Amino acid sequence: MSNLGLGPGREFDRLRGILARLGNAARDIGDDCAVIPDGPGRLVVSVDLAVEEIHFRRDWLTLEEIGWRAASAALSDLAAEGAEVVAVLTGVAVPSAATDEDLYALMAGIGAAAVAAGGVVSGGDLSAGERWVVNLTVIGRARRPVTRGGAMVGDGIWVTGALGGARAALEDWRAGRVPSPLARAAFAHPIPRIAAGVALADAGAHAMLDLSDGLGGDAEHLAAASGVRLEIDLDLLPIHPAVPDVVKAAALPPAMFAAIGGEDYELLVALPPRFRDEDAASFTRAVGLGLTRIGEVRQGSGACFTLAGTPIVIRGYNHFE
Amino acid sequence: MSNLGLGPGREFDRLRGILARLGNAARDIGDDCAVIPDGPGRLVVSVDLAVEEIHFRRDWLTLEEIGWRAASAALSDLAAEGAEVVAVLTGVAVPSAATDEDLYALMAGIGAAAVAAGGVVSGGDLSAGERWVVNLTVIGRARRPVTRGGAMVGDGIWVTGALGGARAALEDWRAGRVPSPLARAAFAHPIPRIAAGVALADAGAHAMLDLSDGLGGDAEHLAAASGVRLEIDLDLLPIHPAVPDVVKAAALPPAMFAAIGGEDYELLVALPPRFRDEDAASFTRAVGLGLTRIGEVRQGSGACFTLAGTPIVIRGYNHFE
Repeated sequence: MSNLGLGPGREFDRLRGILARLGNAARDIGDDCAVIPDGPGRLVVSVDLAVEEIHFRRDWLTLEEIGWRAASAALSDLAAEGAEVVAVLTGVAVPSAATDEDLYALMAGIGAAAVAAGGVVSGGDLSAGERWVVNLTVIGRARRPVTRGGAMVGDGIWVTGALGGARAALEDWRAGRVPSPLARAAFAHPIPRIAAGVALADAGAHAMLDLSDGLGGDAEHLAAASGVRLEIDLDLLPIHPAVPDVVKAAALPPAMFAAIGGEDYELLVALPPRFRDEDAASFTRAVGLGLTRIGEVRQGSGACFTLAGTPIVIRGYNHFE
Repeated sequence: MSNLGLGPGREFDRLRGILARLGNAARDIGDDCAVIPDGPGRLVVSVDLAVEEIHFRRDWLTLEEIGWRAASAALSDLAAEGAEVVAVLTGVAVPSAATDEDLYALMAGIGAAAVAAGGVVSGGDLSAGERWVVNLTVIGRARRPVTRGGAMVGDGIWVTGALGGARAALEDWRAGRVPSPLARAAFAHPIPRIAAGVALADAGAHAMLDLSDGLGGDAEHLAAASGVRLEIDLDLLPIHPAVPDVVKAAALPPAMFAAIGGEDYELLVALPPRFRDEDAASFTRAVGLGLTRIGEVRQGSGACFTLAGTPIVIRGYNHFE
């Protein structure tokens, strides 16, 4: 942490406190702008807004976890573009009842997620507010940015990791139960798939997005952006190990539960037909993450799901319904 | 507006509505990330958060004005770095009582400010919320980024435009009066000084910032970042024409009122001694904006103000006091 170079005042004391807490997780803070380091590839940027009572609840998560999760959700958009992390900037509204330590805990969570993903916190803004609001701006660099719009007929549809873990924790909390540690970790401590995104871009991914809204909704987005139809076999879905215990209470087939559940932050990717199971095995050895073929791209529109050979309807989650 | 490529749902209908309203003021929206166009110079980025009841009130401004003002406040940070505008991204929390038209009006104001400053809206995020929250991320490009930290002993301290107009409107509203059109415009429709910032960077500015917190606080920031002392003669201050009418009620000398008032978004700049009044006149002819020498840089620390030869104390505004 360098000399911050701010005048006196409580707001600036808080900024100094944040920087002391962030240590090497922060860089170049305190000017009107942060200067982005030069480098190869295209710069990409994304914004993600998390609002108390909408995206998180203080009685479910610690403020450090809230910071980690908000930052990781944003960083996941860089992963979905095949980008490495360059910089993270925060806009935080702080309730008047919050202590300095509350704010430092939130920022420590953001800083830890930034560093774990290969970035630093490079700037931001603080405001008073009635509720916690955490806006994350993430900037990355991609040799070959992968959009949602390039899926081609014949591509395989693949997904990283396993689905439904975050939703399992939510289901428990909403029912007044304490989530299992595994489910809680999936919700509180998601890992943005940065290395996986870069590896999939290098492997020739045609289209990619992260499963923030759940497979049901996000598969529709990929289909719409690419002008194709996605046919997904839910019997192939990799299901998070926390799901079976929770799903009895939810009275849903585990695969349907996992397909509806959002906020897993795994990657959904269209890979050309030449990408085979042995390539997926190489990917897993290199990145340490599963990669499962769950369907393919056809002519048409929309996302179609089958379970045990029967067509079913899956909806995504969105904040205005 | 291209095909947005989003699946069905109310959140995505709203995004489509925003894009229809923004027209050419939006570009490349709908993917996980926006790709920043390549170009010369260094990329710089800043974040600015505006919260209802803290930074703005619905009974003072229309939502279009709230959008314009929030975007312009953020763009002003690019001006202070000597940067041109590349991209604007928004994170907006929308109260449940807000209509689609409310949201479109806010976004139209943001889009108008982005276009007026030479940029476009390139992405963002929407959320539900209890109050309006508007987070702006602005990305620019500077041939020579000007920080707050380069002021040198002997530099002149200059300010663009005139100060105190926004504060005059605030003073009227707080006293239950209707501000004059001139004061209201200064508050509701600030102009980020992008062309001025680029011209001052090209003229060899050593340090620069925008007067968001008021001259009192911001001069302290420039002094602290540069490790120097600023001596400012308030008798030289260019005072906004709306100030004299309001200042009688405030019982303050007009120059003190103008120095305390924040949110003018004019630029405070340290220019080398070779920059003279005739250079300022050239600047004004080129940019169409006044540039006034109000003090100079000395050895020491802090910002010192005199009025009619008498030292006085000026404080800035900050959100936690």
